[in-house]
Amino acid sequence: MIYVETATDPITVTRKKDKSYHMAPDQFREEGYKLLEWIARYQEEIEKYPVLSKVKPGAVRAKLPDHPPEKGESFDAMLKDVDDIILPGITHWQSPNWFAFFPANASAPAILGDLLSSGLSVQGMLWATSPACTELETQVLDWLVELMDLPESFRSDSTGGGVIQDTASSSTLCALLAARERATDYRSNEEGCDGQLTAYTSSQAHSSVEKAIKIAGLGKKNLRMIAVDDSCAMRPDLLAEQISADRDAGKTPAFVCATVGTTSTLAFDPVREIGKICQQEEIWLHVDAAMAGTAALCPEFRHIHDGLELADSYTFNPHKWMFTNFDCNCFWVADRKALTDTLSIMPEYLKNIPTESGDVIDYRDWQVPLGRRFRSLKLWFVLRSYGVEGLRAHIRHHVEAAERLTGRISSNPRLRLAAPVSLALLCFSHVDGDAAGEELLAALNATGEVLLTHTRLSDRHVLRVAIGGSRTTSDHVDRLADLLDELA
Amino acid sequence: MIYVETATDPITVTRKKDKSYHMAPDQFREEGYKLLEWIARYQEEIEKYPVLSKVKPGAVRAKLPDHPPEKGESFDAMLKDVDDIILPGITHWQSPNWFAFFPANASAPAILGDLLSSGLSVQGMLWATSPACTELETQVLDWLVELMDLPESFRSDSTGGGVIQDTASSSTLCALLAARERATDYRSNEEGCDGQLTAYTSSQAHSSVEKAIKIAGLGKKNLRMIAVDDSCAMRPDLLAEQISADRDAGKTPAFVCATVGTTSTLAFDPVREIGKICQQEEIWLHVDAAMAGTAALCPEFRHIHDGLELADSYTFNPHKWMFTNFDCNCFWVADRKALTDTLSIMPEYLKNIPTESGDVIDYRDWQVPLGRRFRSLKLWFVLRSYGVEGLRAHIRHHVEAAERLTGRISSNPRLRLAAPVSLALLCFSHVDGDAAGEELLAALNATGEVLLTHTRLSDRHVLRVAIGGSRTTSDHVDRLADLLDELA
Repeated sequence: MIYVETATDPITVTRKKDKSYHMAPDQFREEGYKLLEWIARYQEEIEKYPVLSKVKPGAVRAKLPDHPPEKGESFDAMLKDVDDIILPGITHWQSPNWFAFFPANASAPAILGDLLSSGLSVQGMLWATSPACTELETQVLDWLVELMDLPESFRSDSTGGGVIQDTASSSTLCALLAARERATDYRSNEEGCDGQLTAYTSSQAHSSVEKAIKIAGLGKKNLRMIAVDDSCAMRPDLLAEQISADRDAGKTPAFVCATVGTTSTLAFDPVREIGKICQQEEIWLHVDAAMAGTAALCPEFRHIHDGLELADSYTFNPHKWMFTNFDCNCFWVADRKALTDTLSIMPEYLKNIPTESGDVIDYRDWQVPLGRRFRSLKLWFVLRSYGVEGLRAHIRHHVEAAERLTGRISSNPRLRLAAPVSLALLCFSHVDGDAAGEELLAALNATGEVLLTHTRLSDRHVLRVAIGGSRTTSDHVDRLADLLDELA
Repeated sequence: MIYVETATDPITVTRKKDKSYHMAPDQFREEGYKLLEWIARYQEEIEKYPVLSKVKPGAVRAKLPDHPPEKGESFDAMLKDVDDIILPGITHWQSPNWFAFFPANASAPAILGDLLSSGLSVQGMLWATSPACTELETQVLDWLVELMDLPESFRSDSTGGGVIQDTASSSTLCALLAARERATDYRSNEEGCDGQLTAYTSSQAHSSVEKAIKIAGLGKKNLRMIAVDDSCAMRPDLLAEQISADRDAGKTPAFVCATVGTTSTLAFDPVREIGKICQQEEIWLHVDAAMAGTAALCPEFRHIHDGLELADSYTFNPHKWMFTNFDCNCFWVADRKALTDTLSIMPEYLKNIPTESGDVIDYRDWQVPLGRRFRSLKLWFVLRSYGVEGLRAHIRHHVEAAERLTGRISSNPRLRLAAPVSLALLCFSHVDGDAAGEELLAALNATGEVLLTHTRLSDRHVLRVAIGGSRTTSDHVDRLADLLDELA
């Protein structure tokens, strides 16, 4: 790099090479190769690590210097610390023995798509700030409407459209905000909330619904947790009753969140019945299919979305079960104007000719943040690398593995299935009660060979097995079943 | 991969190799090398592209297939489409000739840190779901407190702490939510907003403040845009007057957002004076230094933060001027309890022993989303690769380049500086009026050699030059000055 040293005359300046601290492209190649090798080896050797990190609180920090480095360090030194300090503090979400929470299954094409996004480092807040960032996203989300047989109204060439967000929490918040505005004739943005709006979800819904209700100023007391039936699905009769009671009390029902695949048991709310109520009552229906949505790639599982054409918005996470590394949440609305009228801001410094023409999408009006990454690249790479065929094959294998494990658990006299097995998620409890279940979970996880988590159903401790790791095979599930036989 | 074909007996099963659609680690190495080479070449050749993409709306989509691929495709086919379809639709934020909006300057160490994050693909919602993800983040944010001489209360071993968010928009929203709760004794989350809270920022503040006010249910009518002085800085006397008038009207002043480096001109609100008012009035003070904050790495620029010890929260973006690719926003609070009491949710399925011990940070309680990427890796790589010394050197070079350009603009009789030059940002207008300025901007950008954007000041059209690209040198700034001489 060349910087001006002294300028004695505006025309003749003396220059000297000034020191650059940037990594030159050739060094980027060299260090990049080392890092790719590191990641490939990590993929190959991942099963040798305990799935759950064994470090104690503070142990990672204790190995890091107290003060930041004054002078630059070599990449090798950094990579060594990744091995020595970071790796022991990693809980291995990509292990094929990951059965905890939900999967967050990554894949090589996704990682490379994300690398390209970092390498281009564009910021897609407006169409103009990188047209490809906006248009690829729109196209890929239209592709997904076709692939998953979602309602036509979600397509960008209809009244709606799709957008990539960071998480389903953010999508649910955006849906709620649009619902809030529609229910108040777009006055809440201007006037503030008035405490009269009510919202509805099931007692099994994800915590992000409650969080969104609080953030948007509706107040938790205005969120109705509708009771569920024996299959953990929302009871539409109770929803209708509650809506009616709220109207009688002078409230304005504004938002229903139905769940397609609840967090604890992957139960499916009856979207069609709920949708009919919402349509009649003119209430915004949002459908959260964060984990289960991916299953709709396979025609035989599409029943989970029955009635989705009655929804105003819908979200699912390719970063859970669709081989796309976090973060990549997809969010669709049937009426994009309701969303952009809610979230649009147009200060002078962002005005530009394409935006004013109305011919382009500016995704900053579809989300809370202003800035955005080029996240559609990884989704595009995944869809093209696997093809529909490949994605379906792996989803089906996971569901088959769950069926296989169901058989093993059913034949274990110490264990009892605690909820209907749903797609690739199983819940079971120990016949000797909660304490035995807790001990079993602790013993399983202490082996380091697998990681499971728990939930509570009907106030009983329940172990969960979520199958969906990219490289989880029936061998891994068999090993889990063996461990269950051994430790139960 | 091995899947069960038929299971006639629970003990002896026949197996066959089933088809895997995953990219094997060796192919990942091979394709990864190609992509790294592609990115390195992009860095080397970036100046040959027009900075602003020249594609017309719809042109990128028109080249993409209407339907998703049924069968998997080769990585080479994907990379070819990146060249043919994506690249023409890229607006080159990483060009050294990028002078638009604000920089979003990436660097090789950041890109590699992000690649490692994708490669590990952990999800850091809880400490337990990858202790290193949480602890490295805490440590690096403590390092930055030291590096930028931020208030001690922001440190994690004090009452506060830092967290990485996606954008300053999200941080400002979180600060506002904490302010809302503190002002209502943590009742708004439960009861909903009541339309009585008021918020304050300057007329030059970022649009994200207004967006946050709307999202959080306060209502735009309760946001006071305080007028600015000749330097575009908030007038604390008018702030005090407005607060007093609101109190008299029965309102509850809850939140002030001061800006350290406004979007249009990088003006600095007087944080100390504003902070004294907030302290006296018991109002949450949030400081938004999204762009300018990075300058505090250099002791000679730290005056921009004078009075910051009076703030309740503070945010700046390493993804703007600190060589860290988007997204990477840093957010600190002086009282972490106010933030976590606002945003914490603890459903059964997230309960775990480390969280219950109280010995660990769960960053999901510090943000809107539940899930989170391992973003501290890229920040760690940047700090270690450059060292403090390197970061300071490049920041100083940008400021010097701005001074040099100031000289050139001052000596151009067709141009007039429109605001005080601030750090690496200049605003100027054309002496012949708005139309001439708009023409000049269009002509500059039409060359493809540079990209600038505009704003309005005192209702006049103003061109902005934001200097901060990682590889922007005085040569690039000279070329811009030459173009200005030519086209003005």
